[in-house]
Amino acid sequence: MERFLPAWSWLRHYDRARFQGDGLAAVIVTIMLIPQSLAYALLAGLPPEVGLYASMLPLLGYALFGSSNALAVGPVAVVSLMTAAAVGELAAVGTPEYRTAALALAGLSGVFFLAMGFLRLGFLASWLSHPVISGFITASGILIAASQLKHILGIPAQGHTLIEIGESLAAGIDATNLPTLVIGVLVTAFLFWVRSRLKPLLRRLGASERAADSFAKAGPVAAVIVTILAVKLLYLESTGVAVVGAVPQGLPPLTVPPADFELWRELLTSAVLISIIGFVESVSVAQTLAAKRRERIEPNRELLGLGAANVAASLTGGYPVTGGFARSVVNFDAGARTPLAGVLTAVGIGLTALLLTPLFQTLPKATLAATIVVAVLSLVDLGALKRTWDYSKADFAAMAVTIALVLLAGVEAGVVAGVVLSILLYLARSTRPHIAIVGQVPGTHHFRNIKRHQVLTSPKVLSVRVDESLYFANARYLEDRLYDEAVSDEGIREVVLICSAVNGIDASALESLEALNDRLSAAGVRFHLSEVKGPVMDRLKRSHFLEQLTGQVFLSQWDAMAALDPETTRTAELGERPALSAAAL
Amino acid sequence: MERFLPAWSWLRHYDRARFQGDGLAAVIVTIMLIPQSLAYALLAGLPPEVGLYASMLPLLGYALFGSSNALAVGPVAVVSLMTAAAVGELAAVGTPEYRTAALALAGLSGVFFLAMGFLRLGFLASWLSHPVISGFITASGILIAASQLKHILGIPAQGHTLIEIGESLAAGIDATNLPTLVIGVLVTAFLFWVRSRLKPLLRRLGASERAADSFAKAGPVAAVIVTILAVKLLYLESTGVAVVGAVPQGLPPLTVPPADFELWRELLTSAVLISIIGFVESVSVAQTLAAKRRERIEPNRELLGLGAANVAASLTGGYPVTGGFARSVVNFDAGARTPLAGVLTAVGIGLTALLLTPLFQTLPKATLAATIVVAVLSLVDLGALKRTWDYSKADFAAMAVTIALVLLAGVEAGVVAGVVLSILLYLARSTRPHIAIVGQVPGTHHFRNIKRHQVLTSPKVLSVRVDESLYFANARYLEDRLYDEAVSDEGIREVVLICSAVNGIDASALESLEALNDRLSAAGVRFHLSEVKGPVMDRLKRSHFLEQLTGQVFLSQWDAMAALDPETTRTAELGERPALSAAAL
Repeated sequence: MERFLPAWSWLRHYDRARFQGDGLAAVIVTIMLIPQSLAYALLAGLPPEVGLYASMLPLLGYALFGSSNALAVGPVAVVSLMTAAAVGELAAVGTPEYRTAALALAGLSGVFFLAMGFLRLGFLASWLSHPVISGFITASGILIAASQLKHILGIPAQGHTLIEIGESLAAGIDATNLPTLVIGVLVTAFLFWVRSRLKPLLRRLGASERAADSFAKAGPVAAVIVTILAVKLLYLESTGVAVVGAVPQGLPPLTVPPADFELWRELLTSAVLISIIGFVESVSVAQTLAAKRRERIEPNRELLGLGAANVAASLTGGYPVTGGFARSVVNFDAGARTPLAGVLTAVGIGLTALLLTPLFQTLPKATLAATIVVAVLSLVDLGALKRTWDYSKADFAAMAVTIALVLLAGVEAGVVAGVVLSILLYLARSTRPHIAIVGQVPGTHHFRNIKRHQVLTSPKVLSVRVDESLYFANARYLEDRLYDEAVSDEGIREVVLICSAVNGIDASALESLEALNDRLSAAGVRFHLSEVKGPVMDRLKRSHFLEQLTGQVFLSQWDAMAALDPETTRTAELGERPALSAAAL
Repeated sequence: MERFLPAWSWLRHYDRARFQGDGLAAVIVTIMLIPQSLAYALLAGLPPEVGLYASMLPLLGYALFGSSNALAVGPVAVVSLMTAAAVGELAAVGTPEYRTAALALAGLSGVFFLAMGFLRLGFLASWLSHPVISGFITASGILIAASQLKHILGIPAQGHTLIEIGESLAAGIDATNLPTLVIGVLVTAFLFWVRSRLKPLLRRLGASERAADSFAKAGPVAAVIVTILAVKLLYLESTGVAVVGAVPQGLPPLTVPPADFELWRELLTSAVLISIIGFVESVSVAQTLAAKRRERIEPNRELLGLGAANVAASLTGGYPVTGGFARSVVNFDAGARTPLAGVLTAVGIGLTALLLTPLFQTLPKATLAATIVVAVLSLVDLGALKRTWDYSKADFAAMAVTIALVLLAGVEAGVVAGVVLSILLYLARSTRPHIAIVGQVPGTHHFRNIKRHQVLTSPKVLSVRVDESLYFANARYLEDRLYDEAVSDEGIREVVLICSAVNGIDASALESLEALNDRLSAAGVRFHLSEVKGPVMDRLKRSHFLEQLTGQVFLSQWDAMAALDPETTRTAELGERPALSAAAL
């Protein structure tokens, strides 16, 4: 049963206690989701009702197939931005073609999610390194905030890069609508205040932690209600304040994505990127929340859940969805115990679409824009740049390039460049591996870098540790380095290559080892290996290298030294071990 | 002085003994080079004199800047094939545009060689793995041999892939010219006989090793002379035997590659590939020969030498050149001591161009084709497929794909696909690294895989060795694997990650280690590291990980076990060491 309907795993144990948790969570998430779904639809360039449609059936789809008990699926900021960028290339905002393309993008993303899930390709997401994801989120946050300034200023503007947006805003800034600006600035200031000051204040006034938190989370709803009333009562619409306008009342329409092969081809790259980024975002938050309750999520089932959600979105007038970070945390904190919380949230949004849409008539777009700005600016983490710089220059480079390209060339170019650069930097590191000449730590059987430790070395045996697998891109370099080290000292008669860090030797490296063996042999030096790992040794045995080897293969470096220079080894063994702390490593 | 004219390093020590060696080598190489230069020009789709032109000034250019004392530069089979493929895309064989494009290709390749040399980018060649080079050479040999069948059959045919050539030959086979076929088959059979049987025969007849070898190498010259005379005396030209025809008498013309930006852009990829492949071929043979005399070559100076040679080729009516394998070996064996041998060879070819070209009038193209077929078939090494399959399936895949694509889609597609596949396979291996749970080998301080050795393990300490650097593509996988291993046994209280094979930990992997530390801590398990390498430790110290770590960092795995479970460690230490040979590793 579970095989065909994963939801069966929680449905059969369902009880009243679980329902209470799920129900309360659904109420709170619904209140949070109403303004968000309208706002993110606006960000994606779509009519507000599309945000509501994307928050109904897709949640049911995820609940049936997903594995997380806390993930809250629906429209999210980054995917909305990516949708706007992808669809904006093909159609103008406001046209039927734009909505159709968004449907097709949701359908195509859904198919990719499902394909990745069935083919168990979830691991592909690991190619997005942490610095690339972090840089991407930060830059997207900045880009999204910039793109919302037009609504706060009340001017028309467009563009998918910081420069385009900036130029567009600069050109229109003279037409700024003052009442709109006032609403936008006040709401933004209010939301920042709610976020940073209200909760501590409520706590000081004696509210419980959870009550204070829930109250603070309702800030956007308060802003929505107050500005709706302000526009209505003060007749602000006549002063040029842009409002959401008439939102169709009722349940989502049934839609069929167009069978337009050309359109699909054009959306292909975007759909792949949305799937991968949507998956990475969802899985990280789902995993974090699951770990808190000692639950597990299954990445490949997450893919199926997200796939079902996106297919549902494309069939019911929506656009691409994925798991939202803040929303899932609220869902979890409010007590969601099973995916049914998502189903109940969908019911809440359904009731909203049926009953409350007339109220949104006078909701200012500036309010929604302010909601978005405050939400996404919390994603911006420029401190990560500093931390990553301190830890690794290569990771910093990948992060910085991702941020710069997302801002200046668009989200897709940024992610692709970040991934490609991460891979190239990883490869580059492995082509010039760290090489350590080692000696014995007195009083022990350990061998350590002569440059970092007080160690004893043999006058006739050179022991070298290569800190990398041997493969085509570093084989010839290592061959030359080892040969040069060996012949630089006339006294050296034996060379031991310590393979403790060699996790593979490919055919090119084998060729180089054979050449090195010959060259050393010609110079009267024998060549040995030590600490060869099982899988590497298995492979070497399938070649002729071990027969040609002038020296031996030793189980450990100590065995090698004991056999090749017993005297030095014994001296070292009897020596006094120096005090070594982890810090001295 | 040497800095501006690298040749000064050998010129200032030049003496009579060196001259004798160089002179003799030059005579032998000249005799070998005459038919080769005509034949390879034919293969490249160029008039025969272009082969002679490419064998004069380029040799001088290399002698002035190169570092090998034995490398014989000039037209070679593989680069001629690549020239035909690249230039054939842009112009028809026999047109002035075709010759101009070949000049431009030589110039562009020369510029790339020089740029790589000045920027010290010789290491880029290491991205061509051994299986890719080997597959490329084998497939090129087959392709070249197939492309020469038309000359042996005496029919027109064309194409740059095996299928194109095959179809073209099949369409024209009815028009086979019998006298041409007879010449082609006889010369081919003769050359194979010379190559495999003549030398042993001469040795049995009492000739010295060197004399027998030199005589055998002159086989193609004998075939050229005999067939020239046969055509002349038997008036075979009138029966339709295609001959080389009038070859202009005299020294090379001065040529200037066209300043046609569009043409350069179209030749760009080909020039880059010719440079890299030409460099790999030259450097391998130069290095092999240098090692035999305890000399060294300098890869970046080789690039300058080859760059000068190709620029010279483009200025004197030639086409791309590089170091030839067989020719360099002959040069070396005949006693070449310095690059002056190359200069003297150029003089020999110059004299040929001035005096002997009228003799080539009746040289059958079938003779040249037979020379090429016999030369390139010796490059074909299908046994390498079997050897590589036995050693490594990944390397085999790269080789097989290279061979298949060179044959079916052309040389450039084949090389590029081979390189890309090698890199992807390398990356794929590192994403699912080998993980070994280890125990102590009784009677020693060594720790080895529990699956491969009789070792002692502690009931409360899990020691895991990860055989790969930790980076974004494997970080999350390893985090989950290690966590699952740790919690699968209730008794485990300590986890030690042995980092002897961990050569790097990037920011993504650091994040995963932190997460793993937290998850294990929540499960009541402490997390330790052992055998962390210096560079990795330096980096970890720049993060907050070591402060958060619930356990310790130990210098060695033995220290870790001695501290965490002294009892088991002592028991293991007192145990009897099992007999272990290298074969048991």
